[in-house]
Amino acid sequence: MNDRIQDDIAHAIDQGRGVAPADLVIKGGRVLDLVTGGLIQSDVAICRDRVVGTCGEYRGVREIDGRGKIIVPGFIDTHLHVESSLVTPHEFDRCVLPHGVTTAICDPHEMANVLGAEALRYFLACADATVMDLRVMLSSCVPATELETSGARLTAGDLGPFAGHAKVLGLAEFMNFPGVLGKDPGCMAKLAAFRGRHIDGHAPLLRGLGLNGYLAAGIRTDHECTTPEEALEKLTKGMTVLIREGSVSKDLHALAPVLTETTAPFMAFCTDDRNPLDIAEEGHLDFMVRTAIRLGVPPLAAYRAASWSAARAFGLHDRGLVAPGWRADLLLLDDLHACRVSTVISAGRPVDDALFAARPEVPAIGRRSVKARRVAADDFRTAGSGPSTPVIGIIPGKIITLRIDLALPYRNGERCIDLAQDVIKVAVIERHGKTVAPGGIGRGFVKGFGMRRGAIASSVGHDSHNITVVGADEADMAVAVNRVCEIEGGFVVADGGRVLTELALPIAGLMSLLGHDEVRGALLPLRAAARSLGVVLAEPFLQVAFLPLPVIPHLKITDKGLVDVDRFELIAD
Amino acid sequence: MNDRIQDDIAHAIDQGRGVAPADLVIKGGRVLDLVTGGLIQSDVAICRDRVVGTCGEYRGVREIDGRGKIIVPGFIDTHLHVESSLVTPHEFDRCVLPHGVTTAICDPHEMANVLGAEALRYFLACADATVMDLRVMLSSCVPATELETSGARLTAGDLGPFAGHAKVLGLAEFMNFPGVLGKDPGCMAKLAAFRGRHIDGHAPLLRGLGLNGYLAAGIRTDHECTTPEEALEKLTKGMTVLIREGSVSKDLHALAPVLTETTAPFMAFCTDDRNPLDIAEEGHLDFMVRTAIRLGVPPLAAYRAASWSAARAFGLHDRGLVAPGWRADLLLLDDLHACRVSTVISAGRPVDDALFAARPEVPAIGRRSVKARRVAADDFRTAGSGPSTPVIGIIPGKIITLRIDLALPYRNGERCIDLAQDVIKVAVIERHGKTVAPGGIGRGFVKGFGMRRGAIASSVGHDSHNITVVGADEADMAVAVNRVCEIEGGFVVADGGRVLTELALPIAGLMSLLGHDEVRGALLPLRAAARSLGVVLAEPFLQVAFLPLPVIPHLKITDKGLVDVDRFELIAD
Repeated sequence: MNDRIQDDIAHAIDQGRGVAPADLVIKGGRVLDLVTGGLIQSDVAICRDRVVGTCGEYRGVREIDGRGKIIVPGFIDTHLHVESSLVTPHEFDRCVLPHGVTTAICDPHEMANVLGAEALRYFLACADATVMDLRVMLSSCVPATELETSGARLTAGDLGPFAGHAKVLGLAEFMNFPGVLGKDPGCMAKLAAFRGRHIDGHAPLLRGLGLNGYLAAGIRTDHECTTPEEALEKLTKGMTVLIREGSVSKDLHALAPVLTETTAPFMAFCTDDRNPLDIAEEGHLDFMVRTAIRLGVPPLAAYRAASWSAARAFGLHDRGLVAPGWRADLLLLDDLHACRVSTVISAGRPVDDALFAARPEVPAIGRRSVKARRVAADDFRTAGSGPSTPVIGIIPGKIITLRIDLALPYRNGERCIDLAQDVIKVAVIERHGKTVAPGGIGRGFVKGFGMRRGAIASSVGHDSHNITVVGADEADMAVAVNRVCEIEGGFVVADGGRVLTELALPIAGLMSLLGHDEVRGALLPLRAAARSLGVVLAEPFLQVAFLPLPVIPHLKITDKGLVDVDRFELIAD
Repeated sequence: MNDRIQDDIAHAIDQGRGVAPADLVIKGGRVLDLVTGGLIQSDVAICRDRVVGTCGEYRGVREIDGRGKIIVPGFIDTHLHVESSLVTPHEFDRCVLPHGVTTAICDPHEMANVLGAEALRYFLACADATVMDLRVMLSSCVPATELETSGARLTAGDLGPFAGHAKVLGLAEFMNFPGVLGKDPGCMAKLAAFRGRHIDGHAPLLRGLGLNGYLAAGIRTDHECTTPEEALEKLTKGMTVLIREGSVSKDLHALAPVLTETTAPFMAFCTDDRNPLDIAEEGHLDFMVRTAIRLGVPPLAAYRAASWSAARAFGLHDRGLVAPGWRADLLLLDDLHACRVSTVISAGRPVDDALFAARPEVPAIGRRSVKARRVAADDFRTAGSGPSTPVIGIIPGKIITLRIDLALPYRNGERCIDLAQDVIKVAVIERHGKTVAPGGIGRGFVKGFGMRRGAIASSVGHDSHNITVVGADEADMAVAVNRVCEIEGGFVVADGGRVLTELALPIAGLMSLLGHDEVRGALLPLRAAARSLGVVLAEPFLQVAFLPLPVIPHLKITDKGLVDVDRFELIAD
């Protein structure tokens, strides 16, 4: 081992000094110097997995023409759930690495809510095989709350065996901030077990002394800021603010003004939840960098946040600069402002199909995980009384919801769908096989989809991933839910008593067995089918999937019923 | 253990939320926000050793009046040798902490050259006892070179047992850069053993492809830059540049223009070698901060470099900001630009005499370490021939020397002192008891002291700490050297055959048993005595002490003779 390391260092020294040809040289490009902001004409020499030479001329065993290109450090996505891309980590790798994401820090929270520690083992096995450096944060809140039924539960004791894995950076987003502030024993055990290590935060709208209490527990990042004021308070209080641009939650426009050369060392980028359509159509972190620059962020600040600042915040001391001795995660750009990535080098290897093909396979897990009973239209009956009904108000492009109290029409003692007010039904059906009929169904109303008929169902439903269904018709809701079960999970659009279109997600009910391009191909007809029902939202499936997330204000729904997130309690019928 | 941590976190949460009074509150001051650069009116709440509340009002069990004060994070000296303060680590703590240095990263290189691993054990025992957080880098180059005789030798195997100590951050300044570039087996073993951990650099004037080779080995910092051009190249190549302002080497004026808000995340401060006189008269890192600001460095850049940037560069993720969850190393300043430190809080404890008095004692080691035989005037005879003699040219305030080839007068076949050219004799006498007479004495000439008579001898002589003596009279040189031996090491000034004044340094021949104020008191008559000999240098003892350092260009002297540092070889007589 020590011999191998010495050999590695010896080659690096010789190639850095130029007394031996480098393994790989990028000839004739310009390096963006993230220290000074300058563009430096220079070859870049690489020995094995690291840069060994800059600011000079080199010859290499293999050479890449860098003329006209700008070389920047590979991007780091600081917080994401691979599951939201609807593909396996291997497909995520193949899809996202070409966009310049050489390091991705993922939280396997979705799969862990279905499968528990088995999901962590699966992700770590994948992380050992991907071309990109996939790092894993240990999911801290499985289940996210006691207000829902999850497939698994991860205690501090369950996480312990994974803490020392080379791919594990720390504890993932600590969403249960009421649990932290209330010193919940399970939360305290996890915080204590990871004391002194990296602990990601998740504290939407938490401010003032409550935020101080949360930070005093040792939490260091936040990716839930939605306004400049919130971001500035969190920055001032020492948090690294991870600007998020997902498929639903899009905070870049709001937060771009906060990202300056002064604050850049304390800010980074993340996607959190981004689907393959958006990745294909817009891009990934490359999209965030070019958009940030377009919004007026100085390029130096944008590129620092995308690499160096992120690396430092997460203790990845070997990357984030193009400099001798640093990891050779490099991007060749056609244009600095447009952030067009033409070539990606991952740990010294130019990324191409052969590199992906050479990865060890990791067998899929979590098949047949969707275990809900068959449902019928009657299962969605919503008895009730009183003049007003709490209705979930959708905000397009946000996972935060409103609570709107509306007068709904009654029929036979039941509250009814009211298309005139754009109010349809929503239900969440427990699917982990933990509830006996007729329990395990939460029912409510939602406003803002624009749906005029039919139903949409999804086994992706944060964070417990029960089946969530929204519909203008109870019979179609049942058709959609039953079809989701038949295909082992996925997305289904139903109308007129039949399935219009679907995408199977048989890996834990969350991920497809298909390639990312095939998944993208399946999402387009799903979007079209949703639009054919009248849906006006750009991302109807993601908006459905976040309706059950009871850690995001203000009104949510789980298999146990409606949740007042501000009070962190179920609303009695 | 876990219970204690949970209890710690629980108190932090409650005090941060303000539902319990904080242990300590600084009331009514303004916090310098190192993220945005703003000054924020705020109480600062502290629970045990960490900050738990900012940007709000708090009440505390104990309260400090912060009105009119500015609160900044404690300073981090990123590279220093405690031995250069001539006092023990405990006295260093008492001397330097009041100047705001709450973390000091030391390299016990001097003592290690005398005592080997015993010195590391001693420093780590002290580090466990000091009020300041004293961190220890493991001395990488003991001996610094094979061109001198040291008291000990530290191999990779000797360092291994210390690598896991909580106070150890990594490998100290890798001075032997020719050894790195030449892939010396001992160097390679150390580089491999500390692969992926922090390795400090030391590479004066190393540039271009040579520097690339050095960096490719995994080295990350440099404190030897003396010009803006050198600093900028090293920054661009990913090094954290530690601006040094010691008692001899003073680089702050030259490098201040490089320290901007843009580069500040990549720069820090260090003192390397600073004596108690300068600490008392000018200050320590507080002096560097105020001087930097006076030289035009933006205050935000100066304070970042002094704390946050330093902490990040060395992987000290718990400090460097005044923010909830961060270590409560805080300074209360009377004035931001003048950097006048009025109160220091170290890990939540206001620093006062009682805190120092409560430290566990650590017994001194390394007594009777100066083992040279008695010498006489004849021992300093300098036979020779040829028209020119290589003479060490002193540059006041620099440890770099010049090589000057001069025609010296001859008498009886010996080269002689030539006061007309300001050329006196210099000799280094091996003192570790490893050489038999008449060997173990290196002889040469030095220009620039201004000395007209007498001699100065020192057992401090970097890095092997043999006895170095300079003199205008060979008999006085012998008197001074013999007296240094009698007092177990120290500084001696002799004239007219007798000792004028002295300071005993009986701990390894490097450190005093006295308090820092007493040492300071002894240094003033030593300076005066040196001036009475005609010496014109501001720091004659430090300039003497660096004459034997053969890793600093250009011409040096050891017990083996004159060293051409550029060729890294001894010069034949």
